Amino acid sequence: MSEEAAIPEVSGVGLVETQYVELFTAEQPLRLDSGATLGPVTLAYETYGELNEAHTNAILICHALSGDAHVAGVHAGDDRPGWWDGFIGPGRAIDTNHHFVICSNVVGGCAGSTGPASTDPTTGRPYGLHFPMVTVADMVRAQAALMDHLGITRLRSVIGGSVGGMQALQWTLDYPERVESCVIIAATARLSAQNIAFNAVSRQAIMTDPEFYDGRYQDHDAIPRSGLAVARMMAHITYLSEEGLQDKFGRALQDRERVSYGFDRDFAVESYLHYQGSKFVQRFDANTYLYFTKAMDYFDPFPDEATAATALAPVECDFFVCSFTTDWRFHSSRSKELVRLLLRHRKHVAYQEFASPHGHDSFLLDLPAYKATLKTFLDRRAGVVS
Amino acid sequence: MSEEAAIPEVSGVGLVETQYVELFTAEQPLRLDSGATLGPVTLAYETYGELNEAHTNAILICHALSGDAHVAGVHAGDDRPGWWDGFIGPGRAIDTNHHFVICSNVVGGCAGSTGPASTDPTTGRPYGLHFPMVTVADMVRAQAALMDHLGITRLRSVIGGSVGGMQALQWTLDYPERVESCVIIAATARLSAQNIAFNAVSRQAIMTDPEFYDGRYQDHDAIPRSGLAVARMMAHITYLSEEGLQDKFGRALQDRERVSYGFDRDFAVESYLHYQGSKFVQRFDANTYLYFTKAMDYFDPFPDEATAATALAPVECDFFVCSFTTDWRFHSSRSKELVRLLLRHRKHVAYQEFASPHGHDSFLLDLPAYKATLKTFLDRRAGVVS
Repeated sequence: MSEEAAIPEVSGVGLVETQYVELFTAEQPLRLDSGATLGPVTLAYETYGELNEAHTNAILICHALSGDAHVAGVHAGDDRPGWWDGFIGPGRAIDTNHHFVICSNVVGGCAGSTGPASTDPTTGRPYGLHFPMVTVADMVRAQAALMDHLGITRLRSVIGGSVGGMQALQWTLDYPERVESCVIIAATARLSAQNIAFNAVSRQAIMTDPEFYDGRYQDHDAIPRSGLAVARMMAHITYLSEEGLQDKFGRALQDRERVSYGFDRDFAVESYLHYQGSKFVQRFDANTYLYFTKAMDYFDPFPDEATAATALAPVECDFFVCSFTTDWRFHSSRSKELVRLLLRHRKHVAYQEFASPHGHDSFLLDLPAYKATLKTFLDRRAGVVS
Repeated sequence: MSEEAAIPEVSGVGLVETQYVELFTAEQPLRLDSGATLGPVTLAYETYGELNEAHTNAILICHALSGDAHVAGVHAGDDRPGWWDGFIGPGRAIDTNHHFVICSNVVGGCAGSTGPASTDPTTGRPYGLHFPMVTVADMVRAQAALMDHLGITRLRSVIGGSVGGMQALQWTLDYPERVESCVIIAATARLSAQNIAFNAVSRQAIMTDPEFYDGRYQDHDAIPRSGLAVARMMAHITYLSEEGLQDKFGRALQDRERVSYGFDRDFAVESYLHYQGSKFVQRFDANTYLYFTKAMDYFDPFPDEATAATALAPVECDFFVCSFTTDWRFHSSRSKELVRLLLRHRKHVAYQEFASPHGHDSFLLDLPAYKATLKTFLDRRAGVVS
């Protein structure tokens, strides 16, 4: 999720625009797992390629914690392409010659979709922590409404990395008849205690920042910058592998010949992390960070075998699960656990572990074997290869 | 370093007292690696057992980041024994029937030794960040002065876990003629980029806490509690293994049947970490945390082979290096690197990796094989076993 780790190629889909659609209203709200309702709900989304006449070539991409709807192409006046641009376009892994590609900012987000920074119609002020809790299933429910709006009853594939992979998995359970195939990348069916622990520390950093004002920081013209930066810096360490960090930075000093014997940022890795933190706070809403980490914590579609059996009974899609050798945030063993569970319940599953020194962030990166395998899987769905 | 993870047995050495000695003065200060000087310098220390007539049975224990001089026994009015009590006493691994055991709070500390919370004689106020940077070698230099004070010219062994292991290694390099054996536990000869990164985030959390006041929080009757708690919570995750956390907490909820759909601490692991954070801020000084993490960052006695050759040439002690299978803060591979380097330079080294699910914290725990091996190594030094 360190988006600059991806080296974007020249965009394949060219100039794109984010679109917005109101899918739920105060009268017909989105019903949430918590029992609360949310309305109005707008989703920001982008599409690439053309929906075929039969509406059978749609692929939905689900973004991860810090992602957004702008997955490919470039916006007018911006020279930086979307966060997975290298994967999407004519001839690319997600080939827009064959597929109609959709990505929406999840509900609760801060990049155009309704979230805690949106105006609460009952108060006229930003929701803040009065925004209702959204789960991964709630995110998927909103995406399903977007598919309805686009006239797509069945998805050729739903694809996601990290928390996006959780959404992809949830799609197969909640809308089994609408999903033909599902690609779950560098994800897990449930957070471990260590994952929850890191999330808890990040929330603590944000919520104890005095600029947080119990989530009402917009009302105070404030941003809990320090807390959000600390949360991002810590999370960033978990996105990279120890080996990757060591190869990239080692113990190199930053712009100096010798250590400062003070509290300067002596080491290059410190300077890098501080840069990541300060850049993140310029683009990401702290409350959304809180909500998304909670949604991750809560995600647990298979708490026991009986629940798994019931949830998976109607699922008929083809799964492709993949993971990366040095990912320690969601280790390969977690993907393998999911694969074993799917196999136990007689689902169609392909699994691949890719060698990469880049840790969890690998899922965003242009790794040839990874891209080629994904392309083959999806081309086959389109009947391009047999 | 999660001291409550250790299950203390009934103390073997009984009632103990911390002692204090001024080892350096303003006129005869401690000379530091940075070029600065520090004086006066008081060290807090404890001793257990009896120094023999020949003064040949002394063992120095070096404490880790959050440790102190109170390694064993109980203080009057306190029912909680020292942080490594189970290892020290008559018949125990560090057997006070045979050894005279010393532990001092390192210089820069906050448990009785001169540190950033001490009064700067030039201003009459606490040093804060005007305290000079202390390195691992500086800590060892102050300990050597304490040995002089105690009339100990040569140590039977110097022992340390984690940052304590760094100090033990440094002893062999700076005072080769004074060290008969050296036990380096769950340590490393240099921090990795990932280690430095975690330290950087912890310092950022502390230094951006508005109660930090550029390190002058005492002058403001303040404590950067939030920042220090976040630093401790994050560090605590790195002290435990993913498996250990999973076995202990998994996804268990804390005092509730179902999730809150809010920002309560739903999970037991969250509650545990918050407890660790809040307890730590009651006993540990935030500035000391900053100084110690910097000392760790800087530690690198063998930046290249030529330096290692020079540093190790006079070293003749017996090394015992050990590590734990699930330690990911200082992985076994780091201990093995050190062992290989020592062997390349023809030093006497024994190495053992112990199986433990408890991660880095294992070094504090009463693991039978670990304790027995340590006891054999030290008993042999005393001539108790051959």
